[in-house]
Amino acid sequence: MRGFESSLLTESLHMDEKQLAEFEQRLTEAGGRINPLLHELFPAGDKDYISRPFWHHMESGGKRVRPALCLMCCEHLGGDSDAALPFAAAVELLHNMLLIHDDLEDGDAIRRDKPTVWKQFGQGNAINVGDYMLGRAYSAILRCPVDDTKLRQLISAFTRAYEHTCAGQALDLNCRGSKDFTVSDYLKMVELKTGDYLALGMVGGALIAGMRPEETQPIRELGSNMGPAFQIRDDIIDLTKGKGRGGEIGNDIREGKPSILYAHSLNVAEPEMKAKLLEIIRKPRAETKTHDVETVLEVYRSTGSIEFAQKKANQLVEEAFATLESIPIKDSAFFQQVARFMAERTR
Amino acid sequence: MRGFESSLLTESLHMDEKQLAEFEQRLTEAGGRINPLLHELFPAGDKDYISRPFWHHMESGGKRVRPALCLMCCEHLGGDSDAALPFAAAVELLHNMLLIHDDLEDGDAIRRDKPTVWKQFGQGNAINVGDYMLGRAYSAILRCPVDDTKLRQLISAFTRAYEHTCAGQALDLNCRGSKDFTVSDYLKMVELKTGDYLALGMVGGALIAGMRPEETQPIRELGSNMGPAFQIRDDIIDLTKGKGRGGEIGNDIREGKPSILYAHSLNVAEPEMKAKLLEIIRKPRAETKTHDVETVLEVYRSTGSIEFAQKKANQLVEEAFATLESIPIKDSAFFQQVARFMAERTR
Repeated sequence: MRGFESSLLTESLHMDEKQLAEFEQRLTEAGGRINPLLHELFPAGDKDYISRPFWHHMESGGKRVRPALCLMCCEHLGGDSDAALPFAAAVELLHNMLLIHDDLEDGDAIRRDKPTVWKQFGQGNAINVGDYMLGRAYSAILRCPVDDTKLRQLISAFTRAYEHTCAGQALDLNCRGSKDFTVSDYLKMVELKTGDYLALGMVGGALIAGMRPEETQPIRELGSNMGPAFQIRDDIIDLTKGKGRGGEIGNDIREGKPSILYAHSLNVAEPEMKAKLLEIIRKPRAETKTHDVETVLEVYRSTGSIEFAQKKANQLVEEAFATLESIPIKDSAFFQQVARFMAERTR
Repeated sequence: MRGFESSLLTESLHMDEKQLAEFEQRLTEAGGRINPLLHELFPAGDKDYISRPFWHHMESGGKRVRPALCLMCCEHLGGDSDAALPFAAAVELLHNMLLIHDDLEDGDAIRRDKPTVWKQFGQGNAINVGDYMLGRAYSAILRCPVDDTKLRQLISAFTRAYEHTCAGQALDLNCRGSKDFTVSDYLKMVELKTGDYLALGMVGGALIAGMRPEETQPIRELGSNMGPAFQIRDDIIDLTKGKGRGGEIGNDIREGKPSILYAHSLNVAEPEMKAKLLEIIRKPRAETKTHDVETVLEVYRSTGSIEFAQKKANQLVEEAFATLESIPIKDSAFFQQVARFMAERTR
């Protein structure tokens, strides 16, 4: 078994550090291009009850991968990436409004080592600024210099991804501590939650470059495979190095999140072990102790759930690459590179 | 001074009980037409983590005034109101997602004598189902059988109203207990919060009937005047008969909401009275006693704030009627009737 933190790729597709750094540099440059527009959409004002929480969150970091991929994809397909800037900004706004709402839904007080919006500004402001950000995202899309037919396609793709993400989140929130949660439930949940959404920027970039909606199908499939693969690796990372919330591991266990490890163990563990797992997962967050996290880790190890998860992630990545081969684009090198980058870098 | 609960209209425009009942009957019939579409958008499912909280909220009542006005306006202007059904549903979804989020932001546990969504299903589900409803609203608009140019106009009007409402809510949330809150701040807040939003259904109906966006300006102005008038009367009603949350009066005082009464009193009260007012408004909700509410009421009475509010509401209604006279539509009788109905019925 390969290490949990290693690449999801086979040797031939593996990106070395130099290739990764180069690609990241391109992403950073492209992602930075939406900043002026974000400042225009969220000007700092006198009574800036919206811009303050907004910028508090935005300035805490985040790599702007999604808007960068939107612009790069548009350019790669021969489009004018300036025309895609508003859509790129919309995708970034969507991503961040979801983070702000998720933090409150999950009760997470820290993100990227800073207090989350609800912690700093109260839950009312966290809900409302997130709502407003979504409105601004649609406003941004309306600014794209595209004809009305293209606008309909963009609004449609954006809305679809947004709805799927919320539908996936509904499963996430309500399957916590469920004793009937299966791996297939998990896969449905993460595909809804991440599938459309991960590729949305690229889909928008492709539409603006002139692709017809039905031609974007392989790009969406790339997301449908890579999104869940990401999420599975995220589940594993939570057990090995933590998710950047002060380095604490086992956050998902404390929150009772329905991870793939939980789903798998629940279905293969002996009755006694299963009862123990359920008991800990259902404990309120504040009552879950370090030794509880260790007990659950022991369950996951003994049921082979971690290997199972790793294998599933690798399989999804392989499927993603298989999809890429069917891309009816002369040069699919860009999408290969994106998929390779995604497989190397989780967060 | 006229009674607080009385009509906002002068005698000549006053609607008698029979006229009101007839108009309400028309509204109820029209509003009911969106039900099949709502069931299509929110089917009850096996794991219906979204449809359960959604229908819990929707079945608690609500008059569907906004979608009804959308359909009636479209028809009145010679359009096919069937084509406006999805937009009417979108407006109703927007209205209700805002109520679900507002209840959580305000910590209100009861709406229409039933537990609010967050109280019944938890705050995570309340945030997420509201988010999803907004996605469904955009999906509904995408279903309107209109050309791409008209679709752009509808998305644009909807997004604008949604953003303004959130911007107004930001002021509402952050001016609680402010010692610098003025009547002009109040008017800005309520115009943002209610102005575009109240007329949105009618604007959509008019666009679908073939009106150009710039021609809808008088309809929007009707909302800009009537929305704040509504809100002011709501502020007054909170002090006289309560807002249907178990009949308790003074809810706004307990929540520290920045009402017009608060704004006015703050600016005209003697220093000692002002200090007392601020002290009570700033108290946490659970610590505000009945005698505190009575003290604030006494302040509002002695500063003449209630008469001031009533006068302001009447003035806004007069402005609304003045606007109607400029409506470049052969027969503005429908809008007259709408304005009269709105002035008679607050909620």
